Amino acid sequence: MNAPHNRRLPIGVFDSGVGGLTVLRALREALPQEDLIYLGDTARLPYGTKSKSSIVRYASQATAQLQGRGIKLLVVACNTASAVALDALQEQMQPLPVIGVVEPGATAAVAARPGGRHLVLATEATVRYGAYRKAILRRDDHAEVRELACELMVSLAEEGWTDGGIAEAIIRRYLEPLAELDFRPDSIILGCTHFPLLRPALERVVADATAIVDSAGTTARVAAASLADDELLNEQQGPGRLQLMATDGASRFARIGGRFIGEDLAASDIELVDL
Amino acid sequence: MNAPHNRRLPIGVFDSGVGGLTVLRALREALPQEDLIYLGDTARLPYGTKSKSSIVRYASQATAQLQGRGIKLLVVACNTASAVALDALQEQMQPLPVIGVVEPGATAAVAARPGGRHLVLATEATVRYGAYRKAILRRDDHAEVRELACELMVSLAEEGWTDGGIAEAIIRRYLEPLAELDFRPDSIILGCTHFPLLRPALERVVADATAIVDSAGTTARVAAASLADDELLNEQQGPGRLQLMATDGASRFARIGGRFIGEDLAASDIELVDL
Repeated sequence: MNAPHNRRLPIGVFDSGVGGLTVLRALREALPQEDLIYLGDTARLPYGTKSKSSIVRYASQATAQLQGRGIKLLVVACNTASAVALDALQEQMQPLPVIGVVEPGATAAVAARPGGRHLVLATEATVRYGAYRKAILRRDDHAEVRELACELMVSLAEEGWTDGGIAEAIIRRYLEPLAELDFRPDSIILGCTHFPLLRPALERVVADATAIVDSAGTTARVAAASLADDELLNEQQGPGRLQLMATDGASRFARIGGRFIGEDLAASDIELVDL
Repeated sequence: MNAPHNRRLPIGVFDSGVGGLTVLRALREALPQEDLIYLGDTARLPYGTKSKSSIVRYASQATAQLQGRGIKLLVVACNTASAVALDALQEQMQPLPVIGVVEPGATAAVAARPGGRHLVLATEATVRYGAYRKAILRRDDHAEVRELACELMVSLAEEGWTDGGIAEAIIRRYLEPLAELDFRPDSIILGCTHFPLLRPALERVVADATAIVDSAGTTARVAAASLADDELLNEQQGPGRLQLMATDGASRFARIGGRFIGEDLAASDIELVDL
């Protein structure tokens, strides 16, 4: 499988929508010479409120689309799909590696606060499957983990209302029941790709000593190590190409995605595909 | 078509999710003896941020499912599908009648404030297609209409945070740009089935003289008139049966849907169907 030409294939990145562009951004920073191909399943988002069988089916169709384009590694940037469908996607992609965001996020949280109290902010489906809790406890049996579904924070990030009083009030309201339980987290894990946009508001709400853990950077480092191990790093000169695909709404993808990737996007930059 | 046995067929109600249960509730009040069959396309919600072609395709598949069960009238409870896909669904269902929520909502707004300034709160897709604006101006060429996409209000209703400071702050923020334009609406149209749940918060934010217009009641009256015209009213004794279907997540449908229909639902009350 690791014939030299495979080095030149892009890394595939899959997400339910635009949120995974925060992971793509970290991959570009860690691996600037790699070509990247991103697929956002915007026609069927959000995954976070759907059942396991639907999430697995949708994620598998998206993976097949990326496989058809030719990729050397798949990054599942969507927390919900990582939590619920990773095994199925690993089987589908073998022998090629598949990296989700949950395991790297758990690694980062345990490294930041060994034996600590961790709070995972995520979607309903990610919380329901307890993937972060299991991944953290596998790494650190002294850890304590609570998970909190925060669907409104997804909409806030999509609407672009990430700063100011409304974002802070919503975060406070989600955290209130924990304060009543006297659960004071040592780390807060941003367990949804939308949530890095709310990091400044979150930092204003929580105690200074709380570590805020974002999977994106750790996931990019795990991807880089995996490519190096498999001798699949692209050694081309100059920056890698970026190809963006979505299953619906190119203009909405460009408008909202620009906030996540940190640069202006035009609808003509997005290829629409049918799964 | 109007053979006597057709009277005993149920009314089909279609929505992208649970929001249309506010319309179903109004139908039950207006037509208590009718059987009702409801389909929420929860696997593919929200429709409000999707493209026209996706909305038409999804709505048509849902309609085919209800046609297969046998219905005598279709109510499109989803504002987005009513705004974007009504013509296609009317063609698919002919000669049977199809009633959307946009036209009845426009009728109610014009009746409440003739020659008035109307503000439509809706999803992105409903606003993009300008269906309410066109429907109001067809009825009243002295009217003035503005439309505002309020996606966060959908999430607020689903989360159940319909009362209190956060709901009011979000509504105020959406309305702020209109105040700066000195647009003071005589009526506010709840152009998304989720928004009746936010009516109390909205009433606290807007001026007392503003009429708040909800399509649900008017749509139910239009449906009743249509059945009477076609001699299709069910004359059975006792209350009609209610059948609920969804395309994903029966337990989430029951939990959130209960708030919309105004009674407790169990996951076992919901039949899952694949479109």
